[in-house]
Amino acid sequence: MPNHNEKIRVSADRLHRFSVNCLTSAGASQSDAEIVSETLIVTDLRGVESHGVARLRRYVEGLATGKIKANPKIKVIAESPATAVIDADNGLGQPAAVSAMDIAIAKARNVGVGFATVRHTNHFGIAAYYALRAVKQNMLGIAISNASPQVAPTFGAEPMYGTNPIAVALPTGGKAPFVLDMATSIVPRGKLERMKRTGQTMPNGWAINPDGEDATEIGELITGLKQRKGYALLPLGGKGETFGGHKGYGLGLLVDLLCGPFAGAAWGRHVYGSKGADLGQCFVAINLDSFRAKKEFEEESSQLIDEICAARKLEKSDRIYIPGEKEQEEVEQSSSSGVPLTLEVYNDLLALGLEHQMIL
Amino acid sequence: MPNHNEKIRVSADRLHRFSVNCLTSAGASQSDAEIVSETLIVTDLRGVESHGVARLRRYVEGLATGKIKANPKIKVIAESPATAVIDADNGLGQPAAVSAMDIAIAKARNVGVGFATVRHTNHFGIAAYYALRAVKQNMLGIAISNASPQVAPTFGAEPMYGTNPIAVALPTGGKAPFVLDMATSIVPRGKLERMKRTGQTMPNGWAINPDGEDATEIGELITGLKQRKGYALLPLGGKGETFGGHKGYGLGLLVDLLCGPFAGAAWGRHVYGSKGADLGQCFVAINLDSFRAKKEFEEESSQLIDEICAARKLEKSDRIYIPGEKEQEEVEQSSSSGVPLTLEVYNDLLALGLEHQMIL
Repeated sequence: MPNHNEKIRVSADRLHRFSVNCLTSAGASQSDAEIVSETLIVTDLRGVESHGVARLRRYVEGLATGKIKANPKIKVIAESPATAVIDADNGLGQPAAVSAMDIAIAKARNVGVGFATVRHTNHFGIAAYYALRAVKQNMLGIAISNASPQVAPTFGAEPMYGTNPIAVALPTGGKAPFVLDMATSIVPRGKLERMKRTGQTMPNGWAINPDGEDATEIGELITGLKQRKGYALLPLGGKGETFGGHKGYGLGLLVDLLCGPFAGAAWGRHVYGSKGADLGQCFVAINLDSFRAKKEFEEESSQLIDEICAARKLEKSDRIYIPGEKEQEEVEQSSSSGVPLTLEVYNDLLALGLEHQMIL
Repeated sequence: MPNHNEKIRVSADRLHRFSVNCLTSAGASQSDAEIVSETLIVTDLRGVESHGVARLRRYVEGLATGKIKANPKIKVIAESPATAVIDADNGLGQPAAVSAMDIAIAKARNVGVGFATVRHTNHFGIAAYYALRAVKQNMLGIAISNASPQVAPTFGAEPMYGTNPIAVALPTGGKAPFVLDMATSIVPRGKLERMKRTGQTMPNGWAINPDGEDATEIGELITGLKQRKGYALLPLGGKGETFGGHKGYGLGLLVDLLCGPFAGAAWGRHVYGSKGADLGQCFVAINLDSFRAKKEFEEESSQLIDEICAARKLEKSDRIYIPGEKEQEEVEQSSSSGVPLTLEVYNDLLALGLEHQMIL
């Protein structure tokens, strides 16, 4: 048995070149390929292996088969001082998302807040990447996306909307920015896949089978979700209302309303439907300077964070984390030693390279 | 034993007059008293009895003792086209919140988005009230507030921040607007108090005792929270990370960062501290017209909602709700028959009336 926890370390530069070459060979422009590669590698460095270069094949094949348009015309179709409506023309999600966040940031610099929606787009990787783009400008950033239908609404027994992530990042005076990047379901499918690879079992209460009962076998659940066989993930808070499942469902539906009808893209069961992905996304930047002096905000936010982290711990717990802190530590650890890849992902990249005559 | 589920119905007009008289007799201006009374009665009509006229005594006594300033000078201390920073001068929370949301709405009408923060303020009732104010203008509304420290961070064993509610409302083409109004803990304390009154028991997993173990006795928990004896509510998602407790904690801490250091008010353990409540709140309005034609948005959002509600149900469940739908139905039911009050609340109002020589 291979050790599934063991990671192969690959230099970020080498991986970046390889990723760019694969994407351009499938038709992407140089600049789009650079953006996608950068987001994938940052994601692996943050330790979110499900959304890193493990997804490169999907993007390359999407471009090669025409499911994702290689030369889209990204257009701003409506605009006001604080808002923009963008049509991504079914291109790669990452370049459209970067454009949208940069437009939101520019507007926030001018009027305090910028809010850009993107329609007819594709998977953008991790939402945190875009939220963090705002943080570099001393702004609060928000990024949300809808996703393929996998989650059951409260009291429902079938998947009706996606894991619809919400990312919010803001600078703090502390050593890491605050970065909340959460699927609005209890767990995203990527986590299930990682657990299956490493032979872990799943607790009851994360998902349901087509009869509405607890899904208990992880492999069966993953297949059932992929093949749309009526299996469904449960919203944050779980089944019913006793532990607040209606709140997780409310957050997920909110993201769908904003990314679907509001942004002008597909929604609910129609995402990744007959018309392709047609995802919708929203990007918000809020200028901290419009609200508080940087120094005051940094002093107080770092003090809040320090006090929270210094709270008395539960038995057997030795540390309280701030959202994003674990990922930041992964980055610091990985940046010197190379991008950590599982053997499975590394082998798949080698295979992808062979198919496209690229050397990793 | 009195029947705690039985409600006394009081005419909204009569209750409004009574509430206004009590507040003005305690020093509030006529217009502030009108605003507070309106929010309290709307709250009872929505069926959220913990935040309705049950709280009138607290506001009246707050004014009478000077804990809440009766004649505050609400000031806009910084402004940009999309943003405003407001100092509520320790006045009643509701009038400041209405001003702030109305400023956000006016800015959203001009530039697409408006974002107003309020510092040095008091309890504002239900967050949904302010979010719904934006909906009346065909806007999306958001209202958040921090609160007294009652919630433990993930892996923490003591209360470090509040139930920090998030309300988001948007118009839909359906019969009710979408209104998500959620404490970021599994349950708010008001729910515990209602359950205790009606003799219900509490499931394990909502809260912890000072040893970090499940709190199991509801009366003990309520007392422990009030007297700050180390009892703590758990974030949405529960204890630890297995069911996503770190997400609920992340949302709660986000609200505290925004309402505290960002808005310029107290945060974490210092809310309702030695300097008084010093709450912070944020209000956002987003103009739907800047993004999509009203007709298109309404058609698609109502279709999304209809499809979600038509999903296959769990066994023993006959209906899927949209957030805010239950409360909307309460309003429709109550508006004709009067404001529903528990015997306990009704008796307390009578007592309050006697103390202030007001007749209910």
